Amino acid sequence: MTIQTLHTGLDTIWVVLTAAMIILMEGGFALLEAGFVRHKNNVNIIMKIFVDITIGTLCFYLIGFALMYGKDIAGMIGSSGFMLNGDLAHLDLSVSMDTYWLFQAAFVIAVISIVSGAVAERFNFRAYILYAVLMTTLIYPIAGHWVWGGGWLGNLGMLDFAGSAVIHALGGCSALAAAIFIGPRKGKFTPEGTSTIALPSNLPLASVGAFLLWFGWFGFNAGSTLSATDARIGHIAIATMLSAASGGAITMLYTLFRYNRSDAASVINGSLAGLVGITAGCAFVSDSAAILIGAVSGMLMLFATDWLEAKQIDDPVGAFPVHAISGIWGTFAVGLFAKDGGLFHSGGWHLLGVQVLGLIVLCVWGFALTWFGLKLIQLWIPVRSTEEEEEMGLDISYHGILAAYQEHEFIHHEDRYADIEKDHDLD
Amino acid sequence: MTIQTLHTGLDTIWVVLTAAMIILMEGGFALLEAGFVRHKNNVNIIMKIFVDITIGTLCFYLIGFALMYGKDIAGMIGSSGFMLNGDLAHLDLSVSMDTYWLFQAAFVIAVISIVSGAVAERFNFRAYILYAVLMTTLIYPIAGHWVWGGGWLGNLGMLDFAGSAVIHALGGCSALAAAIFIGPRKGKFTPEGTSTIALPSNLPLASVGAFLLWFGWFGFNAGSTLSATDARIGHIAIATMLSAASGGAITMLYTLFRYNRSDAASVINGSLAGLVGITAGCAFVSDSAAILIGAVSGMLMLFATDWLEAKQIDDPVGAFPVHAISGIWGTFAVGLFAKDGGLFHSGGWHLLGVQVLGLIVLCVWGFALTWFGLKLIQLWIPVRSTEEEEEMGLDISYHGILAAYQEHEFIHHEDRYADIEKDHDLD
Amino acid sequence: MTIQTLHTGLDTIWVVLTAAMIILMEGGFALLEAGFVRHKNNVNIIMKIFVDITIGTLCFYLIGFALMYGKDIAGMIGSSGFMLNGDLAHLDLSVSMDTYWLFQAAFVIAVISIVSGAVAERFNFRAYILYAVLMTTLIYPIAGHWVWGGGWLGNLGMLDFAGSAVIHALGGCSALAAAIFIGPRKGKFTPEGTSTIALPSNLPLASVGAFLLWFGWFGFNAGSTLSATDARIGHIAIATMLSAASGGAITMLYTLFRYNRSDAASVINGSLAGLVGITAGCAFVSDSAAILIGAVSGMLMLFATDWLEAKQIDDPVGAFPVHAISGIWGTFAVGLFAKDGGLFHSGGWHLLGVQVLGLIVLCVWGFALTWFGLKLIQLWIPVRSTEEEEEMGLDISYHGILAAYQEHEFIHHEDRYADIEKDHDLD
Repeated sequence: MTIQTLHTGLDTIWVVLTAAMIILMEGGFALLEAGFVRHKNNVNIIMKIFVDITIGTLCFYLIGFALMYGKDIAGMIGSSGFMLNGDLAHLDLSVSMDTYWLFQAAFVIAVISIVSGAVAERFNFRAYILYAVLMTTLIYPIAGHWVWGGGWLGNLGMLDFAGSAVIHALGGCSALAAAIFIGPRKGKFTPEGTSTIALPSNLPLASVGAFLLWFGWFGFNAGSTLSATDARIGHIAIATMLSAASGGAITMLYTLFRYNRSDAASVINGSLAGLVGITAGCAFVSDSAAILIGAVSGMLMLFATDWLEAKQIDDPVGAFPVHAISGIWGTFAVGLFAKDGGLFHSGGWHLLGVQVLGLIVLCVWGFALTWFGLKLIQLWIPVRSTEEEEEMGLDISYHGILAAYQEHEFIHHEDRYADIEKDHDLD
Repeated sequence: MTIQTLHTGLDTIWVVLTAAMIILMEGGFALLEAGFVRHKNNVNIIMKIFVDITIGTLCFYLIGFALMYGKDIAGMIGSSGFMLNGDLAHLDLSVSMDTYWLFQAAFVIAVISIVSGAVAERFNFRAYILYAVLMTTLIYPIAGHWVWGGGWLGNLGMLDFAGSAVIHALGGCSALAAAIFIGPRKGKFTPEGTSTIALPSNLPLASVGAFLLWFGWFGFNAGSTLSATDARIGHIAIATMLSAASGGAITMLYTLFRYNRSDAASVINGSLAGLVGITAGCAFVSDSAAILIGAVSGMLMLFATDWLEAKQIDDPVGAFPVHAISGIWGTFAVGLFAKDGGLFHSGGWHLLGVQVLGLIVLCVWGFALTWFGLKLIQLWIPVRSTEEEEEMGLDISYHGILAAYQEHEFIHHEDRYADIEKDHDLD
Repeated sequence: MTIQTLHTGLDTIWVVLTAAMIILMEGGFALLEAGFVRHKNNVNIIMKIFVDITIGTLCFYLIGFALMYGKDIAGMIGSSGFMLNGDLAHLDLSVSMDTYWLFQAAFVIAVISIVSGAVAERFNFRAYILYAVLMTTLIYPIAGHWVWGGGWLGNLGMLDFAGSAVIHALGGCSALAAAIFIGPRKGKFTPEGTSTIALPSNLPLASVGAFLLWFGWFGFNAGSTLSATDARIGHIAIATMLSAASGGAITMLYTLFRYNRSDAASVINGSLAGLVGITAGCAFVSDSAAILIGAVSGMLMLFATDWLEAKQIDDPVGAFPVHAISGIWGTFAVGLFAKDGGLFHSGGWHLLGVQVLGLIVLCVWGFALTWFGLKLIQLWIPVRSTEEEEEMGLDISYHGILAAYQEHEFIHHEDRYADIEKDHDLD
């Protein structure tokens, strides 16, 4: 047994275990979103997560990975590694290509899962499958190449350790575009222009989701070292924990003193905002900065939620406030607080400028490509559910079943879909 | 600190962490099965999983492990290591015996949990305890010895990396035997011979289960290397992911185009079928083969589900289609696709022949021993719940409680069992 | 790459991964407790766990850690390391301070979560926040210093490997004090002095919690080695598994034969009691002793539950029986069964004496400080919910929402709190 073999083994299990933790976050997304939306759409939102983890994984294997991490062309796009074939020697990995791919696949299914929440309760299921294909083959991989795959933003010096920008700002801005594109749920805003709320179907379920996400985030952030001997692992983990705690604590206290009630959804999303916010800087900023980043993430999330309501944009689970806003802030904060290059550590304005440039590019890219992508899909399939489908609930409309049944008798197979069929043809 | 100490430490934490992930799969089984069965049997099916993880663990410690991994007698059975005492030097482990045992214990409780689903909603709880004792002391350990413990099938060259055959085909065929033995649930098949369905009590709960199982499967397959320096870990992990994605994707698209609805239960079981199918070959086959194995697993699972309905065999959670059929296919596929020895890699027919032989032996063994075991238990305790118990639901019948209560008042202790007692004596 | 770098990396990922597993236990606590209490208090009990993991984490970072692990003053208290600043060289760690802190933070949020269950359904939310601050800054850190931080009990030779005493007995006795202080829920004991039961709102949810706790416990116990090359890891893991299995098995069989029904709540708490019981001795006692410790833990938990009912002390989720009683027994059992120093291994009475002394000190400390702490908080905020709040349920009272909604219409924002406000002012 040589030291080199041991080293490779150590890095391998670190990356595989943290990748598995990130993949478990899909369970977290599924439950969080199912808990937040209305009962009649629980199954649909979980099935969208299954689209992400099944079809998304395969698309990234076939095409996405090559565009993101293949041999660079002009800083713009990768060009090798389709189905992991072709020359990938430039990656110069300390773990096997398979191991590396698994970790990256866990990331791409997280991005697309962010969008699934914003379009909850009113998106055509077939259209969602097409959009997921687009996101996992093109939108995310190309942007990811710019920052992490040897492309121009990374070359400029943009710092985004585990993806506040590449995953969350991009995913969150894509979510915003999709939410605007399909419009609000029927009944969410009254004709008089006032906003209403849909009560969450199941907060304990959403909490299971939040705890699974929190757990997986240690894999997300600390695992992004891709090496167990990276001396920053401990610091990344503590920064992640402090920022999440801070985001959750401030939303808890703020809603308690402002509304005289600690609002559960705000606390859940506040903790997640703290996690999103620290994702860019966990390896670069101090503990105190992590606490501050988390607190600001939590508050910005609350304000952004109100802003969406005021603008009559319907984002049922808060994908834009949690992911885009906290992700943008977290990436920006690296320019302020990075120990090496941050404005407040005498690093001057350069890093901050690069961060802002990168954010603008990624947000516009996510928003625009999603918008045009949906336009394109619209040519073939209506992106928005029909009024009947939305009214009936997407669970019955697209999956022929409800989330939960209390009765105990058996029913005949043919009865199951019959009533729906009678009412209207889904195609 | 020597390299040897580091190496042992590295392997130890790899095996302990992956064992813990597999043990968490019991939570996955519990929730998956509870979500699929009717509300009145939720508690019972979770309590059966507690039988597996508590009593199963102790039985395997006392007896099962010794029969599986103890000193070999004639290729048929192990004979040392009861309570981990006695000579086990032949195992020649790189980790401590305790560490190794934990990993193997996690496997045995998975096998018995497969059976628990097939007999849901109509199995006597005391009889289940006895059957679990039988499975964890005798049925699985002896068959496991043949393949993994130094027995005759392993010596013939049978390849079953993490147990498509030893765990899933054996467990699934045992499940089939048990399902046939006790007969269908009352009302599942009408007097006219048509089949009905019981609507799942809670699909989000079943989804939590599926995500926990998916997470745990990385421990199951990659952990089966038992060594962190095994160069195959990365490949095992990616093959596991691709096969699961493929099994889920094909069932999603198939049900969408066939029935105009993506069926949630099929997608959940399709993903699990993909995971089961790749369990034998994850270390031996290519990525593309993994995708193919997963897709075929998903489709075979669907066909086997229909076949069971046609044959009027009642398997409420699909244990036979998911575990036996995908497990059999996955083990067979090793004979086709194994890079070393597979038919399609110029390996000739030998490996395929051995795989088929092994499958026949394990399936017959699981089916027959379960059948005769239940016959034996039947002499003492009725294996099937009474009609009243089944009608009332096993939760009230065997555990004196329902899964969920919405009311908020307190009730008197004596009231709790009183009404049931009045109606009929459970013994 | 030097061996030293590898060693540090190996220990670091071991501690970070096991810390993440322990942090996931907060999800376990949340679901277990939410499942056990009545539906109208589900959100509140989960939000209390969010208090623990957010505010508790920050308090421990600011102050608690320094008092526990800072430079020792007279064996009584630590005095450096506030916000991880100052001299902590005496800790002589093999991993980074950040890594070490994360693991310890995971412990402190477990302690306070124990208390949250005992005061379920009737504790003022603001008062709980204050109590959580007290526990995580003072009560636990000071006691922890005595045993683990270089203080007098550790110097006397007290053995508590992962915290049967420091975490569970201390937390459980604090829980008892709090339960007595605020008194039973309205309706729990009748005017005639008979006891009633509140039916659990959701046993499957409680089971998810139990499985997450079981998984996390491998991190809790085996991770407490703080070093991946500690040769005891495998043994710690197997002892943990056997004791949990034993605690669950005995409560399952006992309730089956005594009441003719296997009681689900008893089995869940019996498994957890087995886990608590082995937490002190997992590194010190044999496999057989672990099985015995688990079985006794399970039975003592049942008796202690009955004792609380007889004494009219209301502990809705069994925090005292599970954590205090099993923790006390497990710590005591180290004095009996420790291979090195235990009474039954010719170690004489010394160790047993120290264990008993330590237990008395920790239990009295937890009980007394909690009692006086609540007295103090009472001066400012009523610790007990008002009758109206309790009647209406704490979810509506403190969080303005229920745990689950089946209806699908949208409601106006202002309506949400309006009815409550009309009825009575919550301040």
